[in-house]
Amino acid sequence: MSSSAPVFGVSPGNVPVFHGSDLKVVDRRVRITELVLRCVIFGLGVLAASLVGFDVQVKKIFSIEKKAQFTDMKALVFLVIANVIVATYSLLQGLRCVVSMLRGNLLFNKPLAWAIFSGDQMMAYLIFAAVAAAGQSAVFAELGQPELQWMKICNMYDKFCTQVGEGVASSLIVSLSMVTLSCISAFNLFRLYGDNKGKSNGRW
Amino acid sequence: MSSSAPVFGVSPGNVPVFHGSDLKVVDRRVRITELVLRCVIFGLGVLAASLVGFDVQVKKIFSIEKKAQFTDMKALVFLVIANVIVATYSLLQGLRCVVSMLRGNLLFNKPLAWAIFSGDQMMAYLIFAAVAAAGQSAVFAELGQPELQWMKICNMYDKFCTQVGEGVASSLIVSLSMVTLSCISAFNLFRLYGDNKGKSNGRW
Repeated sequence: MSSSAPVFGVSPGNVPVFHGSDLKVVDRRVRITELVLRCVIFGLGVLAASLVGFDVQVKKIFSIEKKAQFTDMKALVFLVIANVIVATYSLLQGLRCVVSMLRGNLLFNKPLAWAIFSGDQMMAYLIFAAVAAAGQSAVFAELGQPELQWMKICNMYDKFCTQVGEGVASSLIVSLSMVTLSCISAFNLFRLYGDNKGKSNGRW
Repeated sequence: MSSSAPVFGVSPGNVPVFHGSDLKVVDRRVRITELVLRCVIFGLGVLAASLVGFDVQVKKIFSIEKKAQFTDMKALVFLVIANVIVATYSLLQGLRCVVSMLRGNLLFNKPLAWAIFSGDQMMAYLIFAAVAAAGQSAVFAELGQPELQWMKICNMYDKFCTQVGEGVASSLIVSLSMVTLSCISAFNLFRLYGDNKGKSNGRW
């Protein structure tokens, strides 16, 4: 382990804490990870919304033209909206990250940390729910539900379904990144409530 | 505010921290909230799994008997399994809470705090995804999807659908409680990483 790596010390109260200078290294790494994740979320969120939103396939069946598009399925509309919201949110938060890095400021402001934590949590659950609902619809579209006489439609609209699948996969990466980010913002918030003095109980 | 209420102090580094004795009060409240939530999750999780799992409706259409049950829809199977997992997990965690309260121990053990945090996060996203997928299926069952020629089935199996709806509502409360719990365990974990010394920057 190099000297710049985070080193954990043990306080007199038997509770490990970061030492001052190591905390700064950890802080910088956390900040960079946060920025990278926000960029990934922005990029993949826009990609997912475009893949699903601009996906159209027209099929001619006995001179009747049938058109498949994302508005045919509410779960896909929800997925596109959720991706747009999460991407916009990540862009704004990414800008905040860059500004705070350029200024060299550290996040030790509770109201702001609470706001970021709440926002990240909401976004994580929003995109997670959207992916789950779209995934469920994709299963119906791919396999049908014979018991309910819901026929599979993906053998008819193959190109449409493949592109939606790519959008859902992209959204899944967005949602996992958002979950990681919500853990980081929880870390940034709740360590402000740390009190490492006067504790001598190392057991639970 | 009574003297037993949590009071925030301001450290020399401009970062508010809990004072020692107030921390214990906060700790006790957090612990009790955690226990109550775990009991709620256990109870409602079992209720939701039973409501959906034991829901059967038989319909006679022109001498053909048709039976609706939760295994007809993968999302409902997923919902029942998720509820059983989350309820079992909450029961075990609730027992841990009771044991630690009886022993009077405090949670200041990082590996255990990490384990609880990870478990709570996974359970929160699991039940959230299950509710979203079941909700999506419920929308299809209630409204159908005319563009895809998926007919609504809830006008046929009204009693079945009502009971599934109650199960989904119960699961929704479970998932919201689980989200709150995952915030509490994030608080319990990350405050162990707090370092309130040597910070003079109150801005972000």
